[in-house]
Amino acid sequence: MPQDPQNSSPAPGDPFGWLEEERERRRRAGLVRSLRPRPADSPLLDLAGNDYLGLARHPEVTAAAADAARRWGAGATGSRLVTGSTELHAELEAELAGFCGFEAALVFSSGYAANLAAVTALTGRGTLVVSDAANHASLIDGCRLSRAGTAVVPHADPDAVRKALEGFHGRALAVTDAVFSVDGDAAPLPELAAVCRAHGAALLVDDAHGLGVLGEGGRGALHAAGLAGDPDVVATVTLSKSLGSQGGAVLGPARVIDHLVNAARTFVFDTGLAPAATGAALAALRLLRREPGRASRVREAARGLYERLTAAGLDAARPDAAVVSVRAPSPESALDWAADCRDAGLAVGCFRPPSVPDGVSRLRLTARADLTDAELGTAVATVVRTAPAA
Amino acid sequence: MPQDPQNSSPAPGDPFGWLEEERERRRRAGLVRSLRPRPADSPLLDLAGNDYLGLARHPEVTAAAADAARRWGAGATGSRLVTGSTELHAELEAELAGFCGFEAALVFSSGYAANLAAVTALTGRGTLVVSDAANHASLIDGCRLSRAGTAVVPHADPDAVRKALEGFHGRALAVTDAVFSVDGDAAPLPELAAVCRAHGAALLVDDAHGLGVLGEGGRGALHAAGLAGDPDVVATVTLSKSLGSQGGAVLGPARVIDHLVNAARTFVFDTGLAPAATGAALAALRLLRREPGRASRVREAARGLYERLTAAGLDAARPDAAVVSVRAPSPESALDWAADCRDAGLAVGCFRPPSVPDGVSRLRLTARADLTDAELGTAVATVVRTAPAA
Ligand SMILES: Cc1ncc(COP(=O)(O)O)c(C=O)c1O
Ligand SMILES: Cc1ncc(COP(=O)(O)O)c(C=O)c1O
Repeated sequence: MPQDPQNSSPAPGDPFGWLEEERERRRRAGLVRSLRPRPADSPLLDLAGNDYLGLARHPEVTAAAADAARRWGAGATGSRLVTGSTELHAELEAELAGFCGFEAALVFSSGYAANLAAVTALTGRGTLVVSDAANHASLIDGCRLSRAGTAVVPHADPDAVRKALEGFHGRALAVTDAVFSVDGDAAPLPELAAVCRAHGAALLVDDAHGLGVLGEGGRGALHAAGLAGDPDVVATVTLSKSLGSQGGAVLGPARVIDHLVNAARTFVFDTGLAPAATGAALAALRLLRREPGRASRVREAARGLYERLTAAGLDAARPDAAVVSVRAPSPESALDWAADCRDAGLAVGCFRPPSVPDGVSRLRLTARADLTDAELGTAVATVVRTAPAA
Repeated sequence: MPQDPQNSSPAPGDPFGWLEEERERRRRAGLVRSLRPRPADSPLLDLAGNDYLGLARHPEVTAAAADAARRWGAGATGSRLVTGSTELHAELEAELAGFCGFEAALVFSSGYAANLAAVTALTGRGTLVVSDAANHASLIDGCRLSRAGTAVVPHADPDAVRKALEGFHGRALAVTDAVFSVDGDAAPLPELAAVCRAHGAALLVDDAHGLGVLGEGGRGALHAAGLAGDPDVVATVTLSKSLGSQGGAVLGPARVIDHLVNAARTFVFDTGLAPAATGAALAALRLLRREPGRASRVREAARGLYERLTAAGLDAARPDAAVVSVRAPSPESALDWAADCRDAGLAVGCFRPPSVPDGVSRLRLTARADLTDAELGTAVATVVRTAPAA
């Protein structure tokens, strides 16, 4: 959440003076963030990134990125509506839709942009958006940008969605992450779809963490739930996690995609995704088709991490996909814990306020399909050894 | 602008039925857009893209994209705060800031995301944003996402900005494109800066179309105005136009950049820019440093286009940078005109409502530093020959 800094009168000549107060406030709260650029050949064991299938550095994927840059140029050179649509974009869109079981797909420069597009273009003044309290920032920003009314409902609670829809008689859209990025838990998609259908509402699902991990051969959470391709269901995905690249996409009925081409501001007024990222995502998708076992391997690795951490007495959340989160007693101890892991050669994520909806800080471990059993063992041993006293 | 479709009650079981009405409405208004994927070796003469310096397909730039993908991976694998910051990002940030004359820079996955970040993180409840009526969609979305009050002022009117600031005694930020994307005209930056200073307001300038084109060797509109590096001035740029790649950046005082690292949602919750795009932008920047004449060449080419189109009796706007717009009598005739150009081998842009603030449809021609005189001549002849009767 962006803070709302006090609106103290600015010092004449120093309109950014208030940033010092903000910085001090963050320092006191133990919430200072800084960048730590990594080298190309980091010696750390990586359980922090979202490269779930281990494809970001796969030679086929990086070669496809390189080839696309050379063949199509380094950039798309314009909006997708002007010069920014190449045949490579169209190919990725067709294969992504086919793989996930949807009629059509539209590629964006990021998953963030895809979410802003889907929420804003599928709603309008007088419509209602029903949004899970733990949804990703990009869905929340989509709700804020939309002119729709928004009802924020308790996390993973179809009954709350039902209540929100019951009292409303206009156009409505329920919006949820398929797998929540903080705790790695899955949304109750079949129940949500049933509630939406009973009330004539559409369902928008962000499958950023499900694509490549859930469903048959990684076809995603909606495919797993038997909802892919349904006329009242829209999905968004990122190309930046399981597919190891950059970008995002909206998947859905052709008429929804056609509408987005015309109405979504982050499509119309944004430069198209770079050819290298487009080509890399396409290569990763083809690789996943050929090696569907990667999807089950990452799920098993996550489950193994969870079981071993729990057996060691840590407060880990049972993973529904690739993300395993472990609770920490405080933001400070979470930060120290992550730093101790790093000193011991292990990169893990650290989620602190305001990135956690409930204020509880966590270590965030991500499984990868290409982690060896020895690496998983090392990771668990390191996290356990460096754990703060409860 | 997103439309606000009528909130007719949904047909049971067809929550996207309203999209048919929307489609029909667009069809009647002559505003249907569709994608036209281009091949890698398009035979068209391109005056539609934003590759102003002709660098998107420059062998040094595409080789840098390819090298970066192979060395760093196809994707950044996580948020810039987790695994998504590489030394390549840091290098680009340092060189971009240095080149444009700012203390620090922060790279985003798109210029759109950079604008959302700058506007939202530098404002808050109780602050005032004063925004030019012709600003880019991403700045407008930034205003909508921000909790600040927004005063939209007439286009390129420092006096209107003064009046908006005069009545307000809290924190304020004036926001403007440096070069407006529709008509290619420049904002009155020195006057805007003077007005902001007189009222203790900060100034945020989107130099998407100025970087690489304006200022000494393409250092941008703020460098040209002597405002780069000033403590109350922030710039945003894209890496997707003159630098031929993808991505965006915010440039400004170090304390502003530090604040964005902590507070900007499109930084914190977005995957970092792909290495290939980062490496390509860095290579393009170095090329521009070595060949500063590219910036003046694109300005001369734009000026030449304008003069020849005007001499032929067309209603072109005098370009301040690389964009030359030519007014068309109607949306339909603009579309036909662009199609006729295309049939004659020339790609030009076509701006129609809702992408034009004043409702006037236009052809949009972009100059490139690598256009030959013969190509410019062909382009002018084609546009003139296919012009609709006024
Ligand atoms: C659930 C979810 N949705 C959307 C996004 C945004 O995707 P991207 O990083 O490709 O912009 C992310 C993470 O980055 C995410 O975790
Ligand atoms: C003035 C202006 N600002 C920002 C943007 C967005 O930049 P990007 O396409 O890199 O997201 C654009 C065009 O795309 C633009 O014309």
